[in-house]
Amino acid sequence: MLLYILGMIGIAAFAITGVISSGKRDMDLFSIVLLGMVTSLGGGTIRDVILRVDAVYWVQDTSYLWVAFLSSVFAFFGVRVIENRQQVFHYADSFGLALFTVVATERVLSLGFSPMIAITMGVITGVAGGMIRDLLSFRPPLVLGKEFYATPAFLGALLVVLLERNVPFHEYNSIYGALLIFILRLFAIHKGLYYPSWLLYKKRENHDY
Amino acid sequence: MLLYILGMIGIAAFAITGVISSGKRDMDLFSIVLLGMVTSLGGGTIRDVILRVDAVYWVQDTSYLWVAFLSSVFAFFGVRVIENRQQVFHYADSFGLALFTVVATERVLSLGFSPMIAITMGVITGVAGGMIRDLLSFRPPLVLGKEFYATPAFLGALLVVLLERNVPFHEYNSIYGALLIFILRLFAIHKGLYYPSWLLYKKRENHDY
Amino acid sequence: MLLYILGMIGIAAFAITGVISSGKRDMDLFSIVLLGMVTSLGGGTIRDVILRVDAVYWVQDTSYLWVAFLSSVFAFFGVRVIENRQQVFHYADSFGLALFTVVATERVLSLGFSPMIAITMGVITGVAGGMIRDLLSFRPPLVLGKEFYATPAFLGALLVVLLERNVPFHEYNSIYGALLIFILRLFAIHKGLYYPSWLLYKKRENHDY
Repeated sequence: MLLYILGMIGIAAFAITGVISSGKRDMDLFSIVLLGMVTSLGGGTIRDVILRVDAVYWVQDTSYLWVAFLSSVFAFFGVRVIENRQQVFHYADSFGLALFTVVATERVLSLGFSPMIAITMGVITGVAGGMIRDLLSFRPPLVLGKEFYATPAFLGALLVVLLERNVPFHEYNSIYGALLIFILRLFAIHKGLYYPSWLLYKKRENHDY
Repeated sequence: MLLYILGMIGIAAFAITGVISSGKRDMDLFSIVLLGMVTSLGGGTIRDVILRVDAVYWVQDTSYLWVAFLSSVFAFFGVRVIENRQQVFHYADSFGLALFTVVATERVLSLGFSPMIAITMGVITGVAGGMIRDLLSFRPPLVLGKEFYATPAFLGALLVVLLERNVPFHEYNSIYGALLIFILRLFAIHKGLYYPSWLLYKKRENHDY
Repeated sequence: MLLYILGMIGIAAFAITGVISSGKRDMDLFSIVLLGMVTSLGGGTIRDVILRVDAVYWVQDTSYLWVAFLSSVFAFFGVRVIENRQQVFHYADSFGLALFTVVATERVLSLGFSPMIAITMGVITGVAGGMIRDLLSFRPPLVLGKEFYATPAFLGALLVVLLERNVPFHEYNSIYGALLIFILRLFAIHKGLYYPSWLLYKKRENHDY
């Protein structure tokens, strides 16, 4: 039940980022809603398709579809009153990343897959929606930028797996994982939390690669 | 049977757009044919994968594959004699959009899914092939441009669902839906049919979002 | 067994290209590893999802996942000592293309699909990972460039199908196919092997298409 609600909030958060992201280009209401829906439902769709579950989650339970649709419409009108859209974009994106990653990790674990698969699918589900959004709105993908993005998702998924191992089915396992991801992302956004330079790939001068 | 033929024509139309789109960059015959095939088969593939049907349509019936292949080869040589390629591109794209959307909507309805799923999958099938084409040929996706594109697909799918509700299995239901989409797209292309400005998302000055 | 090893080598090769490709932008260790893994596992994932096999290969056998992960980490540190990264990128890419195409063609044939499907899926598996890599790192897709890329994959897949028809289950069928692809790619890279101009699509002057 908790996972259900967290999943819904994650969908709403990602739908908002899809709408704000589209603002980089003149788009009409319905195209924006479409981008919002693709952003919010994309990650979980890829997860379910790869895991070969019986039915993709929003086909089985269309309330997900409605939440994605209504959040996008709401966000379309709501963003007009927002002063600092970039900040809302990054907060909502981090929030969605945190929720999607832990919900997916829990779901995959509960389907009986190994921890390695659970962590992989958790990270993929968390980052894929935003990746598609960035590609479609012609922005360099956030997850592949120089910010601390994929690592928090990985650490959060890892925490959920470790907690489930030691205190299985504890109510707040997913909350702890989501908090870890969100806090690390906040540090990344505000404090420029970053890897030491020997863990960065630097292009050499006079080279294209 | 009618749906089968309409689907084939849609594949041919989208294959042509894939070939013309590739002309923005120097490409060889086989790469162009590949782009044509991905464009024409991509939307339906995503639909079938999400709906978990028994087999993706072109794997089950390879005549779709042949139509996509031969139309792409034909288009490769055919475009040389076309004077106004941009117009042909937009007409073929609108034609493909119209046919794919209604064929998918009918197919999903006939598989027993709800109208909400049928409309969603109809729109996704109609726009996804062109989206992939635009991404791969490095053009801003048409569907996310400022033109009237996703809305006609949505209205056409809605019309098909309403007609199927009231006059089920009527032969021409899909024809009416396709006509609606195609005519709305023609208006969009030639008359600049567009949303009122309060339904558009405007970037604010001095803001990136 | 041979196919298994070839598949693993192909994954390692593509992981390296993903890492080198990411060098065009400042990225951290984990994002680069993610791009390497998506590049190396993406093509086969699309193949398995379209063919509706029982389980996607790296979900069933997580050793693929580990090979992709470890090769990416290794490549991240390894590329620092490489002088000519562009050449390594093109060699590893050609190597991965050759191996993935023939492994996929063999696999699809052995699942009982028709030669037409086997060739199509072979080419798709070979080129899709690199396509995703190029899209995510904002480079024009190699396969859609003016270089000889999709054609070698097609010819190699065709050779494998022909060999399997005439000398079924011969040990080296896939080796011959891979060699053909790799050699044709080497010619394309070093000698500019190319189609005659009547098989190229040329943009006309003063036209956008």
